[in-house]
Amino acid sequence: MSVIYERVALIGLGLIAGSMALAMREKGLAREIVGHARSAETRAVALEIGLVDAVHETAAAAVAGADLVVLAVPVGAMAAVAAEIAPHLKPGATVTDVGSVKEAVVQAVAPHLPENVHFIPGHPLAGTEHSGPRSGFPSLFRNRWWLFTPAGDVDEAAIARLERLVQAFGAKTERMEAAHHDLVLAVTSHTPHLIAYTMVGVADHLKRVTESEVVEYSAAGFRDFTRIAASDPTMWRDVFLQNKDAVLDILGRFTEELFVLQRAIRMGDGQHLFDYFTRTRAIRRGIIEAGQDTSAPDFGRAPAPRD
Amino acid sequence: MSVIYERVALIGLGLIAGSMALAMREKGLAREIVGHARSAETRAVALEIGLVDAVHETAAAAVAGADLVVLAVPVGAMAAVAAEIAPHLKPGATVTDVGSVKEAVVQAVAPHLPENVHFIPGHPLAGTEHSGPRSGFPSLFRNRWWLFTPAGDVDEAAIARLERLVQAFGAKTERMEAAHHDLVLAVTSHTPHLIAYTMVGVADHLKRVTESEVVEYSAAGFRDFTRIAASDPTMWRDVFLQNKDAVLDILGRFTEELFVLQRAIRMGDGQHLFDYFTRTRAIRRGIIEAGQDTSAPDFGRAPAPRD
Repeated sequence: MSVIYERVALIGLGLIAGSMALAMREKGLAREIVGHARSAETRAVALEIGLVDAVHETAAAAVAGADLVVLAVPVGAMAAVAAEIAPHLKPGATVTDVGSVKEAVVQAVAPHLPENVHFIPGHPLAGTEHSGPRSGFPSLFRNRWWLFTPAGDVDEAAIARLERLVQAFGAKTERMEAAHHDLVLAVTSHTPHLIAYTMVGVADHLKRVTESEVVEYSAAGFRDFTRIAASDPTMWRDVFLQNKDAVLDILGRFTEELFVLQRAIRMGDGQHLFDYFTRTRAIRRGIIEAGQDTSAPDFGRAPAPRD
Repeated sequence: MSVIYERVALIGLGLIAGSMALAMREKGLAREIVGHARSAETRAVALEIGLVDAVHETAAAAVAGADLVVLAVPVGAMAAVAAEIAPHLKPGATVTDVGSVKEAVVQAVAPHLPENVHFIPGHPLAGTEHSGPRSGFPSLFRNRWWLFTPAGDVDEAAIARLERLVQAFGAKTERMEAAHHDLVLAVTSHTPHLIAYTMVGVADHLKRVTESEVVEYSAAGFRDFTRIAASDPTMWRDVFLQNKDAVLDILGRFTEELFVLQRAIRMGDGQHLFDYFTRTRAIRRGIIEAGQDTSAPDFGRAPAPRD
């Protein structure tokens, strides 16, 4: 592969930015990668493990001369970062982000940016429950979706170039409206996370009653919830605050649906339960057919291959 | 290892019974394994792939002369099977089951059994979302809990012998009261499953709105729910009907808790969300420390090792 961007600046050096850095290095997609993180420790680790060629103490210094600037900070921090870097952006540079919410990011970032840069909001549907500069790995984006929500007037060549970069990571790309993105993600990601957090919280209360049993006997379902619910608290706080309307809409539908099932249990309506569970099983098949998971049973205990 | 039971009869030949058969064969724990399944096709498959040495058209015929009888049918079918086999059980035989609910199984099975057999209800906390005679594998129980809920007067030697068998599969054993088992499992397994089913159902409605997007973009959380929600509909219908009280109790706590988080989102209370998510993250660490999962990120797409 050949170089796509001369100089890339990563603002934030966690799981996503770190994985991007490793993927760019592995494939030689950037001539130089520099980074900034608020924490001095994160900056030192990123330099030590070779994620970046250089670190900068400020985001403003990091973006100087960069052809591509990636905002990889929690959604709630995007506005401040955008305001700080705006005067220092190179004319013609592309600015993208990796936030899980898109309308709020557009509202936070776009007003600050000069007209001579290309702002292409993005969201890789990839991640693990780990965070921090040591959590990245270059294959994170392989066969995953990377959604872009550019406004209508963004330069097509700039979008195509950014898509080429993430496709080189192995990602599949799609473009959509920011508001539509936020609704789809409220269903596929945000609400499931909130529910997982809630269930783990319920178990935590009961843990005090049943001592360590909830933890010991977690294998049969609950464990998968804790995996989801172990995700980064700051990132998820911001997701829920910034995608409030869509999440509240889906949560409303969820509780309605849950009450119908709860009533079926109370009334002993086995047929209703059976029919419902049969339908949900078919959805699982759809996901396997869409290539978003394998049909192999998840024993949940074999360490996944790291490389 | 040496033979623990001369003749084992498996009633029901799905994931759990199939995995038991394969584990017994691998380690030479039974001299002869016979089986019964209601479906002629299942019986033919079980014989064809060598799960059992012989199949019988009735459960009554299968249990004749067996030292160990394993009831591996849905919880709702246990009473009828117990009534059918009772007159044909060998004196001194051990009868166990693998149902996910224990009080209801005890009530369904115990009244039918003669006094000269040892009834030791059991529940292996192991499984995948697959079912049927081809879904078993011998390492399913490795490092998993197998809970037993024998009533006070059951012969200690018979319990110890059964524990030796499942420990030879690699399982860890524990004894507890049936009612206590049902409460713990309502938290760690039954309610999480119901919630996963519900979330998948909500997405199914929206799928019609957003076409295939929910399926396509399922990677970020929702996918793990579909995996849980793909479990066997008959088994889960029975679990909810038979563990009704504990499940409704935990569901009540869950919706209370969910409403508190929903309110925090609506009010923009970021501190509440952050604190909650930080607590749930700590629970995840407890599960890893208890050896019930690995800390390796679950990329969710690498096929787990089958052997």
